[in-house]
Amino acid sequence: MKVGIIGAAGFTGIEILKILRHHHDVEVIYITSYEHQNKALNSAFAQIECEKYNDLVFSNHPVTIEDIPKLDIAFLAVPDEAAMKWAPALLEKSIKVIDISGSFRLKDVGKFEEYYKVKHTANEVIQKATYGLTEVNREEIKTATLLANPGCYATSAILPLYCIREHLSKYSEDIILDAKSGTSGAGTRKEKDSLAYSKVNDNFRVYKVKAHQHIPEIEQAIGVYHKDLRIKMTPQLLPLFRGILSMIYLKAEPGVSVKELTKSFEKISIQEPFIRYIKNPEEIELSKVQNTNFIDVSFHHDDHTGVLTIFSALDNLQKGAAGSAIQNMNLMSGYPETLGLTT
Amino acid sequence: MKVGIIGAAGFTGIEILKILRHHHDVEVIYITSYEHQNKALNSAFAQIECEKYNDLVFSNHPVTIEDIPKLDIAFLAVPDEAAMKWAPALLEKSIKVIDISGSFRLKDVGKFEEYYKVKHTANEVIQKATYGLTEVNREEIKTATLLANPGCYATSAILPLYCIREHLSKYSEDIILDAKSGTSGAGTRKEKDSLAYSKVNDNFRVYKVKAHQHIPEIEQAIGVYHKDLRIKMTPQLLPLFRGILSMIYLKAEPGVSVKELTKSFEKISIQEPFIRYIKNPEEIELSKVQNTNFIDVSFHHDDHTGVLTIFSALDNLQKGAAGSAIQNMNLMSGYPETLGLTT
Amino acid sequence: MKVGIIGAAGFTGIEILKILRHHHDVEVIYITSYEHQNKALNSAFAQIECEKYNDLVFSNHPVTIEDIPKLDIAFLAVPDEAAMKWAPALLEKSIKVIDISGSFRLKDVGKFEEYYKVKHTANEVIQKATYGLTEVNREEIKTATLLANPGCYATSAILPLYCIREHLSKYSEDIILDAKSGTSGAGTRKEKDSLAYSKVNDNFRVYKVKAHQHIPEIEQAIGVYHKDLRIKMTPQLLPLFRGILSMIYLKAEPGVSVKELTKSFEKISIQEPFIRYIKNPEEIELSKVQNTNFIDVSFHHDDHTGVLTIFSALDNLQKGAAGSAIQNMNLMSGYPETLGLTT
Amino acid sequence: MKVGIIGAAGFTGIEILKILRHHHDVEVIYITSYEHQNKALNSAFAQIECEKYNDLVFSNHPVTIEDIPKLDIAFLAVPDEAAMKWAPALLEKSIKVIDISGSFRLKDVGKFEEYYKVKHTANEVIQKATYGLTEVNREEIKTATLLANPGCYATSAILPLYCIREHLSKYSEDIILDAKSGTSGAGTRKEKDSLAYSKVNDNFRVYKVKAHQHIPEIEQAIGVYHKDLRIKMTPQLLPLFRGILSMIYLKAEPGVSVKELTKSFEKISIQEPFIRYIKNPEEIELSKVQNTNFIDVSFHHDDHTGVLTIFSALDNLQKGAAGSAIQNMNLMSGYPETLGLTT
Repeated sequence: MKVGIIGAAGFTGIEILKILRHHHDVEVIYITSYEHQNKALNSAFAQIECEKYNDLVFSNHPVTIEDIPKLDIAFLAVPDEAAMKWAPALLEKSIKVIDISGSFRLKDVGKFEEYYKVKHTANEVIQKATYGLTEVNREEIKTATLLANPGCYATSAILPLYCIREHLSKYSEDIILDAKSGTSGAGTRKEKDSLAYSKVNDNFRVYKVKAHQHIPEIEQAIGVYHKDLRIKMTPQLLPLFRGILSMIYLKAEPGVSVKELTKSFEKISIQEPFIRYIKNPEEIELSKVQNTNFIDVSFHHDDHTGVLTIFSALDNLQKGAAGSAIQNMNLMSGYPETLGLTT
Repeated sequence: MKVGIIGAAGFTGIEILKILRHHHDVEVIYITSYEHQNKALNSAFAQIECEKYNDLVFSNHPVTIEDIPKLDIAFLAVPDEAAMKWAPALLEKSIKVIDISGSFRLKDVGKFEEYYKVKHTANEVIQKATYGLTEVNREEIKTATLLANPGCYATSAILPLYCIREHLSKYSEDIILDAKSGTSGAGTRKEKDSLAYSKVNDNFRVYKVKAHQHIPEIEQAIGVYHKDLRIKMTPQLLPLFRGILSMIYLKAEPGVSVKELTKSFEKISIQEPFIRYIKNPEEIELSKVQNTNFIDVSFHHDDHTGVLTIFSALDNLQKGAAGSAIQNMNLMSGYPETLGLTT
Repeated sequence: MKVGIIGAAGFTGIEILKILRHHHDVEVIYITSYEHQNKALNSAFAQIECEKYNDLVFSNHPVTIEDIPKLDIAFLAVPDEAAMKWAPALLEKSIKVIDISGSFRLKDVGKFEEYYKVKHTANEVIQKATYGLTEVNREEIKTATLLANPGCYATSAILPLYCIREHLSKYSEDIILDAKSGTSGAGTRKEKDSLAYSKVNDNFRVYKVKAHQHIPEIEQAIGVYHKDLRIKMTPQLLPLFRGILSMIYLKAEPGVSVKELTKSFEKISIQEPFIRYIKNPEEIELSKVQNTNFIDVSFHHDDHTGVLTIFSALDNLQKGAAGSAIQNMNLMSGYPETLGLTT
Repeated sequence: MKVGIIGAAGFTGIEILKILRHHHDVEVIYITSYEHQNKALNSAFAQIECEKYNDLVFSNHPVTIEDIPKLDIAFLAVPDEAAMKWAPALLEKSIKVIDISGSFRLKDVGKFEEYYKVKHTANEVIQKATYGLTEVNREEIKTATLLANPGCYATSAILPLYCIREHLSKYSEDIILDAKSGTSGAGTRKEKDSLAYSKVNDNFRVYKVKAHQHIPEIEQAIGVYHKDLRIKMTPQLLPLFRGILSMIYLKAEPGVSVKELTKSFEKISIQEPFIRYIKNPEEIELSKVQNTNFIDVSFHHDDHTGVLTIFSALDNLQKGAAGSAIQNMNLMSGYPETLGLTT
């Protein structure tokens, strides 16, 4: 199978390339970058050098669809504006698209434009897009041609809530998501001034307090199970590079059964190769999921207040982006879902 | 005025010494440390070397009260067990005590023993102790002889809630405190294995999920304003040394007035030298309070969910420990409250 | 092939396990750890979880040789004292040994005891040991039964000097090695107090200024090419986890040819799969070698002073320990040398 | 005394303001910044808020000399080009200048233009400039009107060599300076892409391998004591914010007396308030000098190789810039040299 990555030198693009080193059935034949055009991948990104990529050289970003070779699948690891441009063109050429941007995640264009603060220019393909949270949407993904890969924060909230979807109606409609991310989940490779070392190191801060674009994505995905659900999300920036640790707070009806919740988490954990249920929430930490495609989930029901706290930890560049993209690629291509992801 | 510090080589002890360099009316005549006994302060802790401390040498920890010289005030920067031993003895000798441990913060001995998991051995002086959150308890502190200096997490929660105490009845009884601390707020100087560099750096994790000993302290302090209030607290460990950033989530009655809340914060901010109200919560960050005695507070009322989020940031070693201890020392000694703390 | 790792829960042991996930011809059947005995590897070290290790459980450290199952190769990732005990016993049982400790690197027992400050208790097998710096000693390694895997700092100095061995006689006998390591190269998993987060973060310091045990190892290896060579080594501790960056300073005879040096580096770089010659020394950085088995080398000849500076960067846990151990295992077992190391 | 700071919002400008909070005889009446113009200092840089600065507001950078009020002393914390413009104009107006840029450190304009790669536009005042390394040049500084404050790396090399200046002739002419700096010493506040968090954290690298502009500064200062001395300097970037740790390697004649060297270091250490001689070089570390105006120096003579290693540690923003600038200001204004610097 031949794949290409448009925007291959960003954090997510490089992470896809890093994972695909171990995926023996996939050949990467096309990678683009303005900054690195004409450079060999193995020397520009020496940390992922391998024999498989010996001949791989960055092309400039494509200008027209003719610049893009025949591919089976193209990963779009570019900003929203570019993704909205390339997705329809690639589909036209019968190239399947896995879009890592936020462009095709929301079915409601109004919500997209409200939260992303940009006009949607590929309206016509939104309804063709399949939302790519594998565990939630596996069957549809198998036949997808335009795959909207989920957001990293969104994944950290949707998957643990999905684990207990059958119990959600017993909880308050308003859910608090207190989510902390490393810098790679909080910006783009072209680091803005606010991601300078002197501003991140030894520091910790909040951002996008009023509205984060992953809120409607979570509400769309979980709203299926919990009518009128609304998310209050507070993203925060950790002084580290990769990982998201989220706390989800819900208020329960009296008498909610901890045993039932445990059973639900355990069941999912057994079924799903990349969801790990950790009994003791004090064992939730980023170091256990960094550089893996796992999401660790746990919970604590507090008798004192009746608050249910759900914990999740994932690597935003893997399970939150490149890892789940490859999980989806596997499904869309008929490979075992875990190929290349569990070595 | 002559002061001594028992347990002077721990993080808090050293921070007290660091601040007192600039306090021209106070003479430090007695510092103790088992590890550093007989060493000169200026060479053992070269980073705070100053002329004022040229002759200051660590004594061993005292064994009996006779080992302690005549002092006006003694800071106890020792574990709870030691604090419960020394406080009564010092009071007996008419030395005022500022205790940084948790031993005398809770009026309810049962709660103390439940949360601190240690027997209280100085029961008889608990009721004499004055809770030392200056902004809340200023008048009483002026005449205190045994001052129970507040906990760092507790300060980060109580002060912002105190700012809006008159509105608290409009909020749910169950308050969520999502609190993140650097390593100096999460352990003692004798670092445990879990605070090894390899376990903290590039990592982020939760701890004491089920019960943290600052919960009853917050409930005791804020319970005065909000009957039946209960705290759900989740402490987390940041990969940095100093600072606590807390989010406090409350659910409001419909129609709560953002204008009123703003007014309350602004009013306190003007009255109180160390509480800064920051209009834009996205400007809350640890770097602005590290190495200062300020606590920055802000809030955001979310129309989407009705959730009120209160933000606070402080330096756990200053406003959360040594800084507030000196603020209290100033009050207890008739000095201007800010002396030595605002240069 | 069946392998075991004695001391599998230390930094190096875990790194071996991490790499062997991708080595399809090797089965790990025995891992030991006192701290983690009876725990499943996949849950104790969730960050390297994979299907291959689903059934792998830590045994306690062996007490007698009978506790050790039949293996083809055993990795010793234990302190020197333990290595000197187990190596002879394993050889006796016809199990090949790859020893990561320093016990069998030096042929001169006197030097060993002087620099390691411990009595050598397995004198009789020293002469049977093969020094395992693959690039230098490849043919001998193929038939080794007791392999002394090189030290991490030593590798960072020997390999670049080996690249220009034919020119070394033109340089001064006294070589300055200014070497900086992350914490995983500077201690053991059981972190000492000096590797506490509060002492490493935001800090940088020197250690073992007077004598480091890798000095005689470098002199033994390079002495073959440069008679009377002596190393002045200054190890330093970086606030990061993995990686060693070394500067090697030599003083040249006038007229040394930069062209010849370049040719030597280029030649080796082409021959050797894991040595990368980087033309521009300003591109030498740890991030390019972390989590790889590469060593990057470069040089600069300064006309102003006549000083030749050689630069090297490697990952101390990979090329400096676990990676080179597996490179050696491949040679000793007849596999392609790079198997499992270049994906 | 009234002072102003041109370029007050950069790292050095802010550090000057931070120190001057404690300097009771100096009033800061003028601070400039393009980015922060019209903002109050206390709110723009909340971490240094103090009563003394309650009314201090950033002006825009001056366009003509008329924009600058009457000052006793102006600190120039601006790039070289701007410093060369403002220094002559300020002198013209009888305002003493302390220039933190490199513009007036070198007496040899040719060297300046070679190393700084910029044309010198204030040639006429170079000879009036006094080189401001206090310990070396104290008497001249007292009457200086244009003070060229030394470079941070240069200070880290010159001061320890100055301590043993009487012995320098016994050492080789070629001196190796292996110097490691935090990010604040390696760039400007307007961080370049290479100082992004993702490129600095967990990384360590070399830069300016071929020529650093502090080389001629060191040679000019130490050349007085050691004819024909030449410096080979390798700057390196540490993953931390403040501090420079330098190793200086010299090759000695046989028989150099360690006792004599010790005596020289001890003598200077007693005379000089900010030079601390640390007997054991393994106690040299950045944490002891960060946020202080001290430089810690130590040495080790290696019998094995005859190499003398000199160690120095300083805070590049204090002793390497703002601290020494204020030390010089004190001398130029008749204050005690240590005022405001030792609390």
